[in-house]
Amino acid sequence: MRKGELTRQAILERAVRLASRVGLQGLTIGGLAEELQLSKSGLFAHFRSKSSLEVEVLEAATALFTQVVIRPALARPRGEPRVRAIFERWMDWARSASLEGGCIFVAAAAELDDAPGPARDKLVQSEKDWLDCVAQTARTAINEGHFRPDVDPEQFATELHGIMLAYHHAARLMRDPKAEERARRAFESLLSAYRAPSA
Amino acid sequence: MRKGELTRQAILERAVRLASRVGLQGLTIGGLAEELQLSKSGLFAHFRSKSSLEVEVLEAATALFTQVVIRPALARPRGEPRVRAIFERWMDWARSASLEGGCIFVAAAAELDDAPGPARDKLVQSEKDWLDCVAQTARTAINEGHFRPDVDPEQFATELHGIMLAYHHAARLMRDPKAEERARRAFESLLSAYRAPSA
Repeated sequence: MRKGELTRQAILERAVRLASRVGLQGLTIGGLAEELQLSKSGLFAHFRSKSSLEVEVLEAATALFTQVVIRPALARPRGEPRVRAIFERWMDWARSASLEGGCIFVAAAAELDDAPGPARDKLVQSEKDWLDCVAQTARTAINEGHFRPDVDPEQFATELHGIMLAYHHAARLMRDPKAEERARRAFESLLSAYRAPSA
Repeated sequence: MRKGELTRQAILERAVRLASRVGLQGLTIGGLAEELQLSKSGLFAHFRSKSSLEVEVLEAATALFTQVVIRPALARPRGEPRVRAIFERWMDWARSASLEGGCIFVAAAAELDDAPGPARDKLVQSEKDWLDCVAQTARTAINEGHFRPDVDPEQFATELHGIMLAYHHAARLMRDPKAEERARRAFESLLSAYRAPSA
């Protein structure tokens, strides 16, 4: 990896962390330069515009999510163990210290839903890929005989997503000490509803 | 109602709508003045600061939510009919034309979770009151014999909240044509899990 590439990655990691706190819209090349104690003109050379910075931050966040959530979960045995690993890794992500402001995708979804453009397109693609991955994991659980054969894997992905969004809200906004316990109970009910009677 | 009061309410209604699109942080007294074609100094006389504007916008949104979701739902018979009315009215709210940018509370939650201050406090209070109201409605369903006596009303509120958050995400960010169908299926599974065997 060339030195320029390494710097760029280091900058993007800090930018992801900053955006988790101030939002993508709150992220500016000037603010990032200040955070990193770099010159604003140097950062402009890296990211020609705020718009391309937003897209690159979302790409960096997606790569980080793939590394800490998706890859380790997919390394677990197919079926319910992998579904559980998805849930556990996702919970870890939402409270990860490297995202001091919580899940950057939750923040970006609220910011970008009415803002057409490359950043919104990138976010939608990342979210689609992730929900497809969750649905695919539910499909392995059907194939392994852990989930009932008549369940809808996409519906499972939607419902698990809802549990994670409610967890994020309860933990981050409400500072509810029961947030994690409630998310775990909701997840266990979800599994009960999808599990094959013999599993 | 005095004329000054009426103007203030009309301004706040427009401010709620604008904030649903640009977020609370994107809402400025200058931007609102432009939207309303009023003078900025006139608006400053109404709302001394951006911070007090944010709090008043959240208060106005809470009053609107009470009027279009809570009051009509509480007018329905206790138990499952009232729980269903909560769900239907909440869905209507999320896609209401008067909130062109979607639910203002969802947007505000992402913006304010790391921003201590009066606006965050106001939002947390509103959300607590609403989740308590949902839990209380679940309690009437237990008392009416519609829900099992051993279920946890707060857990029901958390899980219904998750369904609504996933719906909002699917409908607004993903523009998923199946968003409503999936939310309805998730709601019916939730009811099945909580319903008393005899109900």
